[in-house]
Amino acid sequence: MTRVGILGATGYTALELIKLLLRHPGATVTAVTSRQEKTHISSVHPSLSGRLDLTLEDFGAEALAERCDCVFSCLPHVASAESCMALLKTGVRVVDFSADYRLDDAATFQKWYEHEHPDPGRLGKVAYGLPELFGDKIPAADLVANPGCYPTSAILPLAPLLKEGWIETQDIIVDSKSGVSGAGRTPKLNTLFPECNESISAYSVGKHRHQPEIEQILGRATGKKVDVIFTPHLAPMDRGILSVVYCRPTRSVTEEQVLSLLKEFYAGKPFVRIVKHLPATKDTTHTNFVDITARVVKGRVLLISAEDNLIKGASGAAVQNFNLMFGYDETTALL
Amino acid sequence: MTRVGILGATGYTALELIKLLLRHPGATVTAVTSRQEKTHISSVHPSLSGRLDLTLEDFGAEALAERCDCVFSCLPHVASAESCMALLKTGVRVVDFSADYRLDDAATFQKWYEHEHPDPGRLGKVAYGLPELFGDKIPAADLVANPGCYPTSAILPLAPLLKEGWIETQDIIVDSKSGVSGAGRTPKLNTLFPECNESISAYSVGKHRHQPEIEQILGRATGKKVDVIFTPHLAPMDRGILSVVYCRPTRSVTEEQVLSLLKEFYAGKPFVRIVKHLPATKDTTHTNFVDITARVVKGRVLLISAEDNLIKGASGAAVQNFNLMFGYDETTALL
Amino acid sequence: MTRVGILGATGYTALELIKLLLRHPGATVTAVTSRQEKTHISSVHPSLSGRLDLTLEDFGAEALAERCDCVFSCLPHVASAESCMALLKTGVRVVDFSADYRLDDAATFQKWYEHEHPDPGRLGKVAYGLPELFGDKIPAADLVANPGCYPTSAILPLAPLLKEGWIETQDIIVDSKSGVSGAGRTPKLNTLFPECNESISAYSVGKHRHQPEIEQILGRATGKKVDVIFTPHLAPMDRGILSVVYCRPTRSVTEEQVLSLLKEFYAGKPFVRIVKHLPATKDTTHTNFVDITARVVKGRVLLISAEDNLIKGASGAAVQNFNLMFGYDETTALL
Amino acid sequence: MTRVGILGATGYTALELIKLLLRHPGATVTAVTSRQEKTHISSVHPSLSGRLDLTLEDFGAEALAERCDCVFSCLPHVASAESCMALLKTGVRVVDFSADYRLDDAATFQKWYEHEHPDPGRLGKVAYGLPELFGDKIPAADLVANPGCYPTSAILPLAPLLKEGWIETQDIIVDSKSGVSGAGRTPKLNTLFPECNESISAYSVGKHRHQPEIEQILGRATGKKVDVIFTPHLAPMDRGILSVVYCRPTRSVTEEQVLSLLKEFYAGKPFVRIVKHLPATKDTTHTNFVDITARVVKGRVLLISAEDNLIKGASGAAVQNFNLMFGYDETTALL
Repeated sequence: MTRVGILGATGYTALELIKLLLRHPGATVTAVTSRQEKTHISSVHPSLSGRLDLTLEDFGAEALAERCDCVFSCLPHVASAESCMALLKTGVRVVDFSADYRLDDAATFQKWYEHEHPDPGRLGKVAYGLPELFGDKIPAADLVANPGCYPTSAILPLAPLLKEGWIETQDIIVDSKSGVSGAGRTPKLNTLFPECNESISAYSVGKHRHQPEIEQILGRATGKKVDVIFTPHLAPMDRGILSVVYCRPTRSVTEEQVLSLLKEFYAGKPFVRIVKHLPATKDTTHTNFVDITARVVKGRVLLISAEDNLIKGASGAAVQNFNLMFGYDETTALL
Repeated sequence: MTRVGILGATGYTALELIKLLLRHPGATVTAVTSRQEKTHISSVHPSLSGRLDLTLEDFGAEALAERCDCVFSCLPHVASAESCMALLKTGVRVVDFSADYRLDDAATFQKWYEHEHPDPGRLGKVAYGLPELFGDKIPAADLVANPGCYPTSAILPLAPLLKEGWIETQDIIVDSKSGVSGAGRTPKLNTLFPECNESISAYSVGKHRHQPEIEQILGRATGKKVDVIFTPHLAPMDRGILSVVYCRPTRSVTEEQVLSLLKEFYAGKPFVRIVKHLPATKDTTHTNFVDITARVVKGRVLLISAEDNLIKGASGAAVQNFNLMFGYDETTALL
Repeated sequence: MTRVGILGATGYTALELIKLLLRHPGATVTAVTSRQEKTHISSVHPSLSGRLDLTLEDFGAEALAERCDCVFSCLPHVASAESCMALLKTGVRVVDFSADYRLDDAATFQKWYEHEHPDPGRLGKVAYGLPELFGDKIPAADLVANPGCYPTSAILPLAPLLKEGWIETQDIIVDSKSGVSGAGRTPKLNTLFPECNESISAYSVGKHRHQPEIEQILGRATGKKVDVIFTPHLAPMDRGILSVVYCRPTRSVTEEQVLSLLKEFYAGKPFVRIVKHLPATKDTTHTNFVDITARVVKGRVLLISAEDNLIKGASGAAVQNFNLMFGYDETTALL
Repeated sequence: MTRVGILGATGYTALELIKLLLRHPGATVTAVTSRQEKTHISSVHPSLSGRLDLTLEDFGAEALAERCDCVFSCLPHVASAESCMALLKTGVRVVDFSADYRLDDAATFQKWYEHEHPDPGRLGKVAYGLPELFGDKIPAADLVANPGCYPTSAILPLAPLLKEGWIETQDIIVDSKSGVSGAGRTPKLNTLFPECNESISAYSVGKHRHQPEIEQILGRATGKKVDVIFTPHLAPMDRGILSVVYCRPTRSVTEEQVLSLLKEFYAGKPFVRIVKHLPATKDTTHTNFVDITARVVKGRVLLISAEDNLIKGASGAAVQNFNLMFGYDETTALL
C-alpha cells in the first residue's frame, strides 16, 4: 500500500485526485494539507462525506515524510516549489501540479510567472509528466512536473507531426476552450456563475502562461524550436478542454495519412484515442482519455483534441504518473 | 424628463435597472454611485459600453439632490436606509431595493436582519412596491419599498385566495427555486460557477429573511395573519424564480374556479398573466411578467408562479413603481 | 466472470450502466441490443470508443441466453416486460429498469401507464431493487424491478419515519427537481437545449407515474397506506435529483431526533449518507450515494435528499442489485 | 403603422423578431404562418401569452399581401425563396432570413445547399442586410437577404482591414463559437440538452455553408477575393457568437492602429462597438450590438467579435433593415 499526501487539498484538482485515489487499490491517502482551512476534509468537500476521514493540517515536510511515500502538491506556483524542495530532502517522491518544474529555465519562469524561481537548479531536468511522450523518464523520477491542462491538449496532437517533420514549426495556432473549473476554486468575479454562465470569451490572448510551456515541451519532445499563438477561452461548463490546432503542412497530406500517423504514434498508449469523428469534450469528461482527430482544410491541417481538464489535464495524469512511479499498471484507478 | 440616480450601481439589479431606464422615454440617468469603485460605469459593466457616459461617484445626498428627481437605492440593508433618510430630507423621492422599509416593525427587522433599524419611525408606513396590490399608495409616495424577489412570486398568487377566504391562512408551503443572480455580484464560494453549475440545492431552510416579508405583506394585503413555510433553492441558471405554493382550501374548489378568481382579481393588471399551462421561468425572463397557474391535487390547491427575479422581482418592479410615482404609463419601458 | 447483456443500449441509463460495468472486475458485457440502431456501440456513444467492442443487435431471448447470465433491460414499459418474460423462460436473470414490475397490481399499472400489463401474474411478487429496504429479497431473485429515479429519492428518507410512526401517512408533499437526462435520449421539443436551459418548470403536476410507485412501495416497506402529493420539476442540468419532502409529525420531534433515527435505520448501508448540512445534488453526482438530511420548520418535518438520477436513481442501483444477485460485494464498481 | 407578416413563426428567430416588433412603435404584426402548426401563436410560444393575438395560418401570398406591407421569412432555404418570389409579385417587401439570396450565383448555392436555386435570376442583385456595409442599398430594396449569424461576426471585423489592404486576403482563419439556439428549434439528438450541455465541440469543420457567404460578401464589400478557413463550434449556452479571426498583416501594425482603423470605419454606426477589452458574448446578449476588439500576437492580427446570434445575428439585423426600408430611425426598437 503506497501512502499518499496531498498539499493544497481544498481545490478542485485535489478533490478530483482524492476521488481517483479512493478507487486505487494500492494507494491510501494519509494526509491532506491546507494553508487556510483546518477542518475535516468533508466540511470543505461535502462529496467526500463518509469517504475520507482526515482533517486538513499545516504543511510540514518531516511530519508528512513519516506518513507518506508520495506527495501530490496542488499548491500555487513558487509555494509549491518551496514545499517540493523540503519534501524531496526527506526522500518523499513528489508529483507537482504547479508550473514550477515544467519549464526549461529560470529566466523563462521569471518572465512569465513574475517571480524568481526558488529552485532553479532542478529546471530542465525534471520529468514532465506526459507518459505518452516521456514515459521512460517517469518510473525512476523522484519529482514529476504534472502538465498544464491546456498544454496536454495541444502537445499530444502536435508532437507526432512535428517529430516527423510533416508540419511547419512556426505559425501554429492553438485555439482552446476550457471549462471554468480550470480557473480554480478561489472566489473571483470572473468565475462567478452569473458572469460566465451563458457566455463565452477569450482571455489572456497572447499572454497565457501555458504558451511557453507548450513551446518548450514540444521542443523537448521533438528537438525543434516551435512557435505557437495560443488563445484560451472560458466556456460555460464545469470541465473539459477542446483545442483546435491550426498548422501548416510541409508537404501535401491527407486526413487519412494524418490519422494513421497519429494512430501509429500512440499505439499502445491506453489514454489517447485517435478518432474519425469530431470529438466533444463530453466524450471524455470524467475520464483520463484524450480524443484526437484531424482534418485537412484548404491546405491547412487542423488537429482537434478533447479532454477533461481536471482528469487527463490534471489529476488523472497525476495518478497515471503515480502508477508508473510506484510500479502499478498505468491504468489503475483510471478506467 | 425625470432625472434619476442609482446607488450601488455595480450589482446585477442596478445593471438591469440601467438597461430598462435607457429604454424609458421619460427618464435620464444622471448619477451612479458606488462605495468601492470610482471608475467609468462601463468598465464595471462592459455591456453598457457606449450607452451611458457616467463615472461612479461617492454617495452625497445634497450633491445627488441637485441632479436627481428620483433615486433608486441598490445598497444593502441598513446602509440603504441611512442613504434613503438623507435623500428624503432633500426632497428627492426614493425607490429602495433593500429590505429596510418592507417590514411592519423594527423588532421583526432586528430579529431577521440582526441590526438595529436606523429609521424605525417609518416602518409600517412605507408603500410596498407591488402595484398589483398596493397601487393606490404608490403614486403619492416619497419612498417606495421595492419588494423582495421571492415575496413577489409568493404574494401575488396567494393574495386573492387569502382575501376571499378560499384557503387556510396556516400550513402554507412555498417551495421556490431561484437563479444565481439573486445572490448578488460579490464573489463567494457558493456562487462560483463550478459550485452551483450542474447542481441544485435548498438553502436557508426555515431561516430565509423573505419569510417574514411574505407573511407581513400578505397580512397587510388581506387583513389576515398568515403562516408560511418557505424553502428557497439555488438553481443552475442566471435568472428566474419558480414558486410552487401548496395551500389547503377551506372548501371544495376546482382548478377552473381558482383560475377564474385569479383572473378576475388581476383583470387590468398588465404584468400578471393567469395561464392554464404550467409556466416555465423562461417564459418570463427578460420581462416584467409574472405567469401564474393553479392545480388542485388530492384536495390541496397548488399555485405556481414564474417570474424573472431581476425584472419583476427587482428592477422591473422598480421602474413600474417609478412610472406610477412620476405619472408615466405603468408599462413604460417594460413591454 | 458474469456475462451481461443490455437491452435498449442507446439511452443514457444504458450508457451509464456500461461505464459502471466496465469498472466491474466480475462482469463482462457480451451483448447490447437496440430496436433501431444496428451499428457499433461506439458510434452511438462516442465516449465508449475503444472501450467496448460490440455491435448493437436485435433482441432475441434464446440468442442472448447463450451469451448472458444476467440481462439489464433499459427498454420502455410494456416492451420491457415482454422481453423480460421471454428471458426469464430461458433461465437468464433480469434487472428491469422499466416500471413494469414495480407496482402491486395490474389495475394500477393500467390506470397510470394506459396499457394492459403483459405479465400481470408476476405483479406484487417481484423484488423491488432498493437494497436498503428490500435487501433480503434481492439475492435470490430471478427478476428485480429497478426503482424509478424519483421514488428512490422520496422513499429512502420517508420509510424510517413512517415505519416508526413518527409522521402522518397522509398529506405528504414531495417536491422534486430533476436533471434533464431523466427525460431520456429521444429528441423532443421540451428537452431541447434552448427550451430547458436557463429555465425551471414543474411538469406532470399531480399526474406523474412515480406517484403511485412511491405510495405502493412505501406501503410495502412500512405496512401503511400512504398518500403523497408529488411535484416533479425539470431543472437545467444533466443529472441529479433533489427532493424536499414535507411531512407532518405525529408527535413533537427535533431535527436531532430525526437525524438520529435516519442514521440508525441506515447504519451499515454503504450508499445512504445521513448528513447535517443541506445536500446539493452535486455532492452525489457520478456516485451511488444518496445524501439525506432533515429540518424541523414550524412544526413540519422536512426531509431533503440528493442523488444522481442516472446512478443511484438508475444504473448504480442496478449494479448494486446485480452485485447482490450474483454474490459480489454490494459496493463493487460503485465506489 | 407598417403591417408585418412572419413566415415560419414557430422557431427561435421568429419568436425573437416578434418580441422586437412588439416594442416597435411603427410596426404591427398582422399575420404569422406555419407549415405544421395551426394553433394560437401563444400555445407555441408561451412567452407571448397575452401579447399577440394571432393564430398560425397557412402561407398564401395574396392573402398576406392584403394584410402586410412587409413580410419576414423565417423559412428554411429553397422554401423561403419560393415564398419570397410569390410575395414580391404582389408588391410586398420582404426580409429573408434564409440563405437563399445571400450568395452571388446559383452554382455556389447548388454546391453548398445541394438544391437547384428556384430564383437564380435575382442572385447577386439582392441587398445583403448588413447596413454597416451595404446601408445605401437597403432603403430602396424590395428584398433584403438577412445575413447569416456567423458571417456577421466575421465580416464586420474583417471588412475594414481588407478594404484598406492591411491584411492578406488568404490564410484567414475564423474560429467561431455559437450558442445552441443557432441550430434551430426542430428536435434533434445533437441539440438535446444532455448532449450539448457541459460540452463543447467543433462541427462541420471545413464544410459549413457560412464559409462561402463570408467569402463572397467580403468580396462584395472589399472588391477582393478572400479565402477563409471557418471552424464553427457548439457551445453550451442559448445564445451568443464569439469569433476569433486570425489574419496576417501585409505590413507591421500595432493593436492601437487596428483599433483606430476599426473605430473610424464604424464611426456613426450605432450597433458596432469597438472596444479595448476582450468582449464576452454576454456583453451583447439580448442586444443588437457587435463588440469588436483587436490584438497583435507574434505578428498575427487577431480580431475578436461578440454578438447575440438571435439579435444582431438574425432578428435584430432584420428589424434594423426593416427600419431602413420603411423610413424609421435605424435604432428603433433596438436600444
